[in-house]
Amino acid sequence: MTVRRIEVRERVMARNDAVAHTVRARLESAGIRAINLLSSPGAGKTTLLERTLDALGDTMAIAILTGDVQTQNDADRLARHTTALVQAVVINGACHLDAVQVAAALDAIDLAETDLLFIENVGNLVCPANWDLGEAEKVVLLSVAEGDDKPEKYPSAFQRASCLVITKIDLLPYVRFDVERAVGFARALSPDIEVIRCSATTGEGTDQWYAWLGRRVADVASACR
Amino acid sequence: MTVRRIEVRERVMARNDAVAHTVRARLESAGIRAINLLSSPGAGKTTLLERTLDALGDTMAIAILTGDVQTQNDADRLARHTTALVQAVVINGACHLDAVQVAAALDAIDLAETDLLFIENVGNLVCPANWDLGEAEKVVLLSVAEGDDKPEKYPSAFQRASCLVITKIDLLPYVRFDVERAVGFARALSPDIEVIRCSATTGEGTDQWYAWLGRRVADVASACR
Repeated sequence: MTVRRIEVRERVMARNDAVAHTVRARLESAGIRAINLLSSPGAGKTTLLERTLDALGDTMAIAILTGDVQTQNDADRLARHTTALVQAVVINGACHLDAVQVAAALDAIDLAETDLLFIENVGNLVCPANWDLGEAEKVVLLSVAEGDDKPEKYPSAFQRASCLVITKIDLLPYVRFDVERAVGFARALSPDIEVIRCSATTGEGTDQWYAWLGRRVADVASACR
Repeated sequence: MTVRRIEVRERVMARNDAVAHTVRARLESAGIRAINLLSSPGAGKTTLLERTLDALGDTMAIAILTGDVQTQNDADRLARHTTALVQAVVINGACHLDAVQVAAALDAIDLAETDLLFIENVGNLVCPANWDLGEAEKVVLLSVAEGDDKPEKYPSAFQRASCLVITKIDLLPYVRFDVERAVGFARALSPDIEVIRCSATTGEGTDQWYAWLGRRVADVASACR
């Protein structure tokens, strides 16, 4: 039975990876930078996206695809900050988005009018890291309230991310969180990972995030010329 | 393929449930109250257990089984607070504990000398809720830093828990978290859920947690007489 389970899992993963490959090709040929956001529940993915839409929405065409276990609360929150389509994928108890869901959601997005696509994954620091959605890169958020040991304890997401956003830094005076220790664990897994520290509540550090996003989108634009 | 996947998943779940059934019988006949702790990463399961061992370790025989994705950091932390065996289950990237792992870990624990068994699950608010480990009950932790909407967004864990511990209440002045709103969402899913608010850092509210645990253990003791 174990053998069959592995076999089925491998087939499901292989199917996912094949679809992810076509999603990636589709996004690249449309000149869209796609970013897959990973984190624990409550690390602040939606709040950071709300603030990002307010800050960059006039200069960049941003589309969002958000996966939720049960509600479409995140999509509703985000829709208040943008006229662009926010695509909700309610996955009824599943623990991660997969490429098939992303491929289907893309059909509802005007790709020609999009520069940057955020894929807000399910709040889960374990499962989503293993699934390629066809994104250009993964970004992992870690709230200082979660503790500085999390990259070591949940390595996959940090290993696969090109950027670590340490969120809720306004709480640093009130929690035990050694930023250098967290960054050390993350760099041990992913030596070139970009590290951004910010608070989406106070706005501190978000300029660095916007600048990083700007460079990502500019890279795609110049590659398409 | 989809059909086969469901079939295999059902067989894996059925196997799990059968083992959970024997684990439960074994724990009950030994007069042990087993509590399966669920939460997001960084909600404070290990810190609450450290404080609980310090507070109750002299009056209650507590054993701990802790599941970690990659490290055994939690087990190492807990071992400093108790002479009882802390059993580490490192599950190499899996997203939840299962009953087979618990059954194997029980062989290393002196059941005759145990009143209370904590099973500290993987930090993940989605997957562990679906797996019966043979516990008497599930307890879900929610840190105020995660946001008061989490019970609505991740309903399974809250639906199946008999107790909700709202943790890190020392952070309440610094975050947007409406306790009544969180409790309302949880009670909509599980009307009789016990709600305890505490901070394992300051100790505030932990007496209520210890009293609740004391009643749970007393219930088992009187049932065994």
